[in-house]
Amino acid sequence: MIRKVLIANRGEIALSIQRNCNEMGVETVAVYSDVDKGQPAIYLADQSICIGSGKSSASYLNVANILTAAIESGCEAIHPGYGFLAENGDFAEKVEACGLKLIGPSSRVINLMGNKLSARGLMEESGVPVVPGCNDVVHDEDQLYRIADEIGYPVLLKASAGGGGKGMRRIYKREDLVAGWELTRREAKASFANDDIYIEKLIENPRHIEIQVLADSLGNVVYLPERDCSIQRNNQKIIEESPSRANSDLLEKMYKSAVMCAKACGYEGTGTVEFIVDKYDNYYFMEMNTRIQVEYPVTEMVTGINLIKEQIRIASGLPLSVKQEDVAANGHAIEVRVNAQNPYDDFRPSCGEISFFLPPGGLDTRFETALYQGAKILPFYDSMMAKLIVKGSTRMDAIKKLRRAVSETIIDGVPTNLGFIYAILYDKDFILGNIDTNYVAHKEAELLESMHVTGE
Amino acid sequence: MIRKVLIANRGEIALSIQRNCNEMGVETVAVYSDVDKGQPAIYLADQSICIGSGKSSASYLNVANILTAAIESGCEAIHPGYGFLAENGDFAEKVEACGLKLIGPSSRVINLMGNKLSARGLMEESGVPVVPGCNDVVHDEDQLYRIADEIGYPVLLKASAGGGGKGMRRIYKREDLVAGWELTRREAKASFANDDIYIEKLIENPRHIEIQVLADSLGNVVYLPERDCSIQRNNQKIIEESPSRANSDLLEKMYKSAVMCAKACGYEGTGTVEFIVDKYDNYYFMEMNTRIQVEYPVTEMVTGINLIKEQIRIASGLPLSVKQEDVAANGHAIEVRVNAQNPYDDFRPSCGEISFFLPPGGLDTRFETALYQGAKILPFYDSMMAKLIVKGSTRMDAIKKLRRAVSETIIDGVPTNLGFIYAILYDKDFILGNIDTNYVAHKEAELLESMHVTGE
Repeated sequence: MIRKVLIANRGEIALSIQRNCNEMGVETVAVYSDVDKGQPAIYLADQSICIGSGKSSASYLNVANILTAAIESGCEAIHPGYGFLAENGDFAEKVEACGLKLIGPSSRVINLMGNKLSARGLMEESGVPVVPGCNDVVHDEDQLYRIADEIGYPVLLKASAGGGGKGMRRIYKREDLVAGWELTRREAKASFANDDIYIEKLIENPRHIEIQVLADSLGNVVYLPERDCSIQRNNQKIIEESPSRANSDLLEKMYKSAVMCAKACGYEGTGTVEFIVDKYDNYYFMEMNTRIQVEYPVTEMVTGINLIKEQIRIASGLPLSVKQEDVAANGHAIEVRVNAQNPYDDFRPSCGEISFFLPPGGLDTRFETALYQGAKILPFYDSMMAKLIVKGSTRMDAIKKLRRAVSETIIDGVPTNLGFIYAILYDKDFILGNIDTNYVAHKEAELLESMHVTGE
Repeated sequence: MIRKVLIANRGEIALSIQRNCNEMGVETVAVYSDVDKGQPAIYLADQSICIGSGKSSASYLNVANILTAAIESGCEAIHPGYGFLAENGDFAEKVEACGLKLIGPSSRVINLMGNKLSARGLMEESGVPVVPGCNDVVHDEDQLYRIADEIGYPVLLKASAGGGGKGMRRIYKREDLVAGWELTRREAKASFANDDIYIEKLIENPRHIEIQVLADSLGNVVYLPERDCSIQRNNQKIIEESPSRANSDLLEKMYKSAVMCAKACGYEGTGTVEFIVDKYDNYYFMEMNTRIQVEYPVTEMVTGINLIKEQIRIASGLPLSVKQEDVAANGHAIEVRVNAQNPYDDFRPSCGEISFFLPPGGLDTRFETALYQGAKILPFYDSMMAKLIVKGSTRMDAIKKLRRAVSETIIDGVPTNLGFIYAILYDKDFILGNIDTNYVAHKEAELLESMHVTGE
């Protein structure tokens, strides 16, 4: 078993990793930026090291400082959490070059699946359905028109180096194609230092359904019940749940595809194969996330399987603690992301000090956060402050529990999206499960309006 | 279904009742003493009513004010929680006389089982094992000697009106008998306005194992997995867990006895049949608690059954939501009671304002509390501030989770028993399950000493 882990993250995920390491008897080193001294993971870790100033680039993205901290503190492994360096192939290579273990798949797999075009090609070869489109990088306007015309509009321009909802542009009309391509290239160049663009058919109003897989170094691959993450705003997930409303035939196919995906790329660790599902129940590979995801607790709640512990087991060379036939799902879990955002100001990230804090509680109610009264929400980092996860016997039971839990949560000092979430929990379409990835875009004005009515 | 409930309690149990009512769509009225205005249940309830000043006798034990509040706010039922008026037969009678429903069994059952001597007689008639002893009230010294000599020393003098660890005296030698009897009578008179005393054989170093039963108004009785509550100090439980280490033969007998007990007294509601188990695996009825108990979450965690919702269902005349054959236990749950007490000052209850508060979290970690930063711990009420409940795959897994959760909990501003609990969690005998009701008495000095070592 790995004996000592550096936690290269902050906030709730750093705390969760800390908790699991502690329960497993694994020593920890917390790293932090100088504005993050109050983070709970720091006082809980066996050791803590400041790795730079507030800006992410100076600290949580500072590869040299993180590697130095890991080596000097005698860590054997680094847990990257999600975000920051979690899917950075260069970082993974350097970790490996230092003789350390990155908790997650190898740099080869991170690079392979991180390039969305190479991942797409591999999936197609492996028999995993991909969105109709072309596996080539677009080199000139002629080629651009030829491919798009062949696919048929609307099309989606995608950056090879994109992912997680970034580096995509929808093109509805032929006349917007060239301008859109040029814009996407420039953006991709700026964001990812890589302007490779390819084209796919735009699947309109799909559901986002993803399959969590676990793969150990002994060749065992297990899939877990799916998560529906269709409630998104600007491609950022807000609400995730398990199970989805997909029928069992479709799910069986998706499970099989997810396992094929993991096997095709030689995966090791916990990973998520993201699919989009159209209204005819066609499903298409979108991307694989080669890390723990924000929404992992949803799966923990319905299966009882501790995913971060599985990560550490796998990275230690141990077999998975579960076999496929032992995986059982119980009840319905839903997670909502509690963000420091102002819904009345286009969900602009908000900053400030938490002046009063009362987390929700109760049976099957889980609140994952590093918040405390007096904590500061800083401009440097993601606006997600907490994750509220509940489990009910049915979806409706879970929704009622969520309404109750959201309404008892008090986070004073910064605007939050809790009122907006509360409005969703009372929305007819959400309750009926009439959800797709455009749900929020379609209903935002109506939901904001109903916030006034409920007084949230 | 009952539509509106008055919650005649405070603290974590008031909050839990509030949460469950809310999820079930049941309206609530919170009542509070004037020093309890900040209680979370108050802002969450549909309505709240001040029922008196800080002292319990003026507020949470003020029957007239509580009944007036219930009637004037249009409640159909009163949930008494535990403590305060929860097992007060007079209160129950008055609630019924007002045409209201007390959520729990009828006043007849509360009175019957509240009188420990009548309960003992009924159990003996029903074939439930009782401690060797006599079903008569002791009237004079001759009778006292006769019964005690017949039973054989050591004996236990018990007040008929006692219970919950109160109104008991151990007598080891014949020459202490009369003085002990007189002292116990005087104490019983003062505490319970009833000086009836009876005698039982003293079972030395027993385990305390109790069976949760659910009984609806349609005659269905279901038992749930047992709880071991042997870790007590001065007859007050500190740590409760499920399952126990009792073997399945013994458990089957205890389950059967618990159901017989519930049927014999015509029970309706959630109740607990408490047994003591000697080292030869003989078990004896001790008492029945005719209310929800502090340690109910332990059973919720292993069964997934929501006990407070069952109480409300039963009181509404609905059938239990579970059948005996559907009850399944999963994993091992342990609860620790977090008290405002100073272990270094003989666990004296402590008061003060919570200056910093960081509750524990994580998978299968539940923290039931009405605490918040700025809350005041008052001299008027019980010193229990919170309950920490975890579930693990095994007992050792749960212990590791508890160690982690206890060590991450911060409650500044008042002395707490957390350090003492932490010491127990590392104690060899606790870990091995070598526990009985004298565990704490035997080990207190050693545990206090080890607190210095761990720095807790």
